[in-house]
Amino acid sequence: MGVSLCFSNSTTHDHTLHSFSSYRSSPSLPKSLCFPFYPKPLFSLNLNLNLMSKSNCATVDDLTLTSSNSLLFDYHRFDDQLLRNIAYDSLVWASLHGLLVGDKSVQSSGTVPGVGLVHAPFALLPNPFPESHWSQACQLAPLFNELVDRVSLDGKFLQESLSRTKQVDEFTSRLLDIHSKMLEINKKEDIRLGLHRSDYMLDEQTKSLLQIELNTISSSFAGLSSLVSELHRSTLSHYGKSLGLDSGRVPANNSADQFVEALAKAWIEYNNPRAVIMFIVQAEERNMYDQHFLSVYLRERHHITTIRKTLAEVDEEGELLPDGTLAVGGQAIAVIYFRAGYTPADFPSESEWRARLLMEQSSAVKCPSISYHLVGTKKIQQELAKPNVLERFLENKDEIAKLRECFAGLWSLDDSDIARKAIERPELYVMKPQREGGGNNIYGDAVRETLQKLQKAGSQEDAAYILMQRIFPTTSAAILMRNGCWHKDHAISELGIYGAYLRNKDKVIMNNRSGYLMRTKISSSDEGGVAAGFAVLDSVYLT
Amino acid sequence: MGVSLCFSNSTTHDHTLHSFSSYRSSPSLPKSLCFPFYPKPLFSLNLNLNLMSKSNCATVDDLTLTSSNSLLFDYHRFDDQLLRNIAYDSLVWASLHGLLVGDKSVQSSGTVPGVGLVHAPFALLPNPFPESHWSQACQLAPLFNELVDRVSLDGKFLQESLSRTKQVDEFTSRLLDIHSKMLEINKKEDIRLGLHRSDYMLDEQTKSLLQIELNTISSSFAGLSSLVSELHRSTLSHYGKSLGLDSGRVPANNSADQFVEALAKAWIEYNNPRAVIMFIVQAEERNMYDQHFLSVYLRERHHITTIRKTLAEVDEEGELLPDGTLAVGGQAIAVIYFRAGYTPADFPSESEWRARLLMEQSSAVKCPSISYHLVGTKKIQQELAKPNVLERFLENKDEIAKLRECFAGLWSLDDSDIARKAIERPELYVMKPQREGGGNNIYGDAVRETLQKLQKAGSQEDAAYILMQRIFPTTSAAILMRNGCWHKDHAISELGIYGAYLRNKDKVIMNNRSGYLMRTKISSSDEGGVAAGFAVLDSVYLT
Repeated sequence: MGVSLCFSNSTTHDHTLHSFSSYRSSPSLPKSLCFPFYPKPLFSLNLNLNLMSKSNCATVDDLTLTSSNSLLFDYHRFDDQLLRNIAYDSLVWASLHGLLVGDKSVQSSGTVPGVGLVHAPFALLPNPFPESHWSQACQLAPLFNELVDRVSLDGKFLQESLSRTKQVDEFTSRLLDIHSKMLEINKKEDIRLGLHRSDYMLDEQTKSLLQIELNTISSSFAGLSSLVSELHRSTLSHYGKSLGLDSGRVPANNSADQFVEALAKAWIEYNNPRAVIMFIVQAEERNMYDQHFLSVYLRERHHITTIRKTLAEVDEEGELLPDGTLAVGGQAIAVIYFRAGYTPADFPSESEWRARLLMEQSSAVKCPSISYHLVGTKKIQQELAKPNVLERFLENKDEIAKLRECFAGLWSLDDSDIARKAIERPELYVMKPQREGGGNNIYGDAVRETLQKLQKAGSQEDAAYILMQRIFPTTSAAILMRNGCWHKDHAISELGIYGAYLRNKDKVIMNNRSGYLMRTKISSSDEGGVAAGFAVLDSVYLT
Repeated sequence: MGVSLCFSNSTTHDHTLHSFSSYRSSPSLPKSLCFPFYPKPLFSLNLNLNLMSKSNCATVDDLTLTSSNSLLFDYHRFDDQLLRNIAYDSLVWASLHGLLVGDKSVQSSGTVPGVGLVHAPFALLPNPFPESHWSQACQLAPLFNELVDRVSLDGKFLQESLSRTKQVDEFTSRLLDIHSKMLEINKKEDIRLGLHRSDYMLDEQTKSLLQIELNTISSSFAGLSSLVSELHRSTLSHYGKSLGLDSGRVPANNSADQFVEALAKAWIEYNNPRAVIMFIVQAEERNMYDQHFLSVYLRERHHITTIRKTLAEVDEEGELLPDGTLAVGGQAIAVIYFRAGYTPADFPSESEWRARLLMEQSSAVKCPSISYHLVGTKKIQQELAKPNVLERFLENKDEIAKLRECFAGLWSLDDSDIARKAIERPELYVMKPQREGGGNNIYGDAVRETLQKLQKAGSQEDAAYILMQRIFPTTSAAILMRNGCWHKDHAISELGIYGAYLRNKDKVIMNNRSGYLMRTKISSSDEGGVAAGFAVLDSVYLT
């Protein structure tokens, strides 16, 4: 376990990073530090730090690092005062540049902009990542964009693949109902907008890049993620010499620009200058600034108005005009951008489901449409990993091979052979429910217990889960900033590559890799969502 | 009294604007409004609002406006939903662009960057201001820069003018002691850096621009003020047609750029590439982001390192090297920028006074030097307003006339004739102590009482005050944003024009007008400091 260290002496914040059963056990304790409120001067900005600085850490065990590249970022080799100055400057930078979230200790911070602000959690320094794997992940983005679109066109495949899931997962079942209705009325979606994010980890054992999941709805952090890369480039521009790091190794991150461009182009394709872009949001949203960056850029760069509505508000104020236009509060909607609606919690009543159906029936561009949404389910991910399934949707053998290379082992639980193996060696598997949003995965002994319980019950409940090969990611030393505090620990990282896809009938208008999201979490935590409290925003340092 | 209206439902913030005895009584109550959390769509962005929208305000009395220009900004003529949308967008804009302060309800927000953030209080729309008076104020900036420098060279004038004040005001007395010591050792200040702000109000009765005070130390809000102008230009770019306002009428505000340029040029003149700029700060500073903008720009644009020190830290870590260099924590200091040290509260012990003396003895460029600091006292302002005093320092008759034109009536209390008049008509005067920082002025009946008490005591205490002609500023309708809430009320405004002056021996390197600060406060409050909680940041709309 690591130790949290604070600039702050506030007691209202949660200063600890939650710990779960670990990927790998942490072999040592990071150093504990007293924190001054003001940064102190360095005696020289050009100070070349070397391992001599470890003499200040004599009482601290060394980290066991699993990669020689990681040594570059081992904080033991950095001067402590240098790190404090960087931490202080980074907190300032975050405040001045909108790298912010709502503070959960302030009640109104999820509804009222400008109050109860706190910096978003971030890594003090970027995360080392091999250039070859980076290139591999980048190349996959347009292929996944294309794949999602192709699969979404095969309504039968979606319905059949999800038929068992439908029986046990109410949420997926309701989505499939809407999808069925659209198939029945032969609903056409000429303008197809996808803002996806494919998440990967580097597996230490196989030295390979493996896909964790593909998000086709509400791919978050496109707004804040590009800021973190900018922060790290700024840090290395100023402190790079002292750190022995080169700001040029942090790839530029245009995620916000790309998402805004895609939304704007979809708005143009819809071709109603009086229509607006509607963000579907949760009633409380502490990650609102991530979303607001997109709105502000849409307004400032493209003069496009955005409105924010909850699903319940759409039900209350929305109507379908005879020509198929969706009007909400009397306002025509060109594009619907979902930042809610990905979790059962977003549908507390029939009102929200009515809103979802209404929107799907309209001519507005949906990001995502119901079929794009379904393509992002875990079950479809698992189906696509089966032999000969990719070949149903794509022709190019090289591209198919590239996609398949990043697939981890994925199985349904009706495969009794794999279920038996997972009960024997649960540490090699992760059980994943269909639901999105993080926090629901099952690891370790709980995998065995859950599988045995499902077998005993003999019900169809097993269809609510898939089994996935457990990935053992590379561990590195990291400094995680949260609530004005730092936390030094072993950490693992997950790389998300954004993709933007826009097609109008046969014309593909955009099919781009669109920036990236690096998330870093202490390695003793199993869960990955930054918003869920276990991880920080990070960026890539190419090695 | 106006009514505060909230986006926020938090109870931890102070939502009211404090009220004091009034400049003018408010003849009517502004409208009370229920606030939704999300902005709603306008039916058309090009909606031309007119007085029809007043039909929604039938229960509200009209504001009695003292200027026809102000009618342009009377919020009764604006659609209510339009104002809500602007308020929401403005709160978002403030969050994304660093228009922030520390929230006083969060303990660590004054010491730790990135936590406990809340938008700085701001006016929703810019404040109407006549172009002729704007030009007049702008022209005065370089003249005041020059005047401060000239007066600072006359040590005898400063000592003599402040001799009576010295006997009763401990703070001024200690400053004069340091000044005397510098005169004794014939300390030379070759490089002279002034970052001033001259504050004005428009007097409704005389239709003239009158100077309130001249700040020569810690002229605050250069960082945030330029942002507010940018916010207002952005608002009018998007909503200008609906509001009937033109973003081009909001003058660009380069206050942050100019201050940074002046500090950087002073650093260059000092000519030690290894030296840094030291900000003298209070231990707790909720207005830290205003300061941090300057630090970040100095680093990013000029590659100059800044450090932050309290006076006590300078006493502890500072030393004077044999060549006159000031070293703090071993770090050579090129420029000392005071954002503390202007109030007795900043000197709780002898430690702080030792630090102030040490810095004055050094070769570092002081912003301000002890003599610049003394020129900014109220007593010197009053002395300069006496007949034939400006002529001691300046030659150009036109410039002298321009300066004198903006002087309000200023008197010392040993003028028994004026004291008698003030006891008879206290509402026409303001009593001002030497101290800076706002909140100390005496108005109304308290002027009479204080004067009578001083006369009865027969002591020298009267020398701690000056009397100033009371200004009756133009009132206008304004919407003040604070803690996510709005407050609609009658308001008055104070215009500060920044000036940057840099001289090295005989070479004047900068003598510029350097942006502006508009502060708006509800007219039932007498005090002016935004940080003190009675006012909001604003900008100018030229009429």
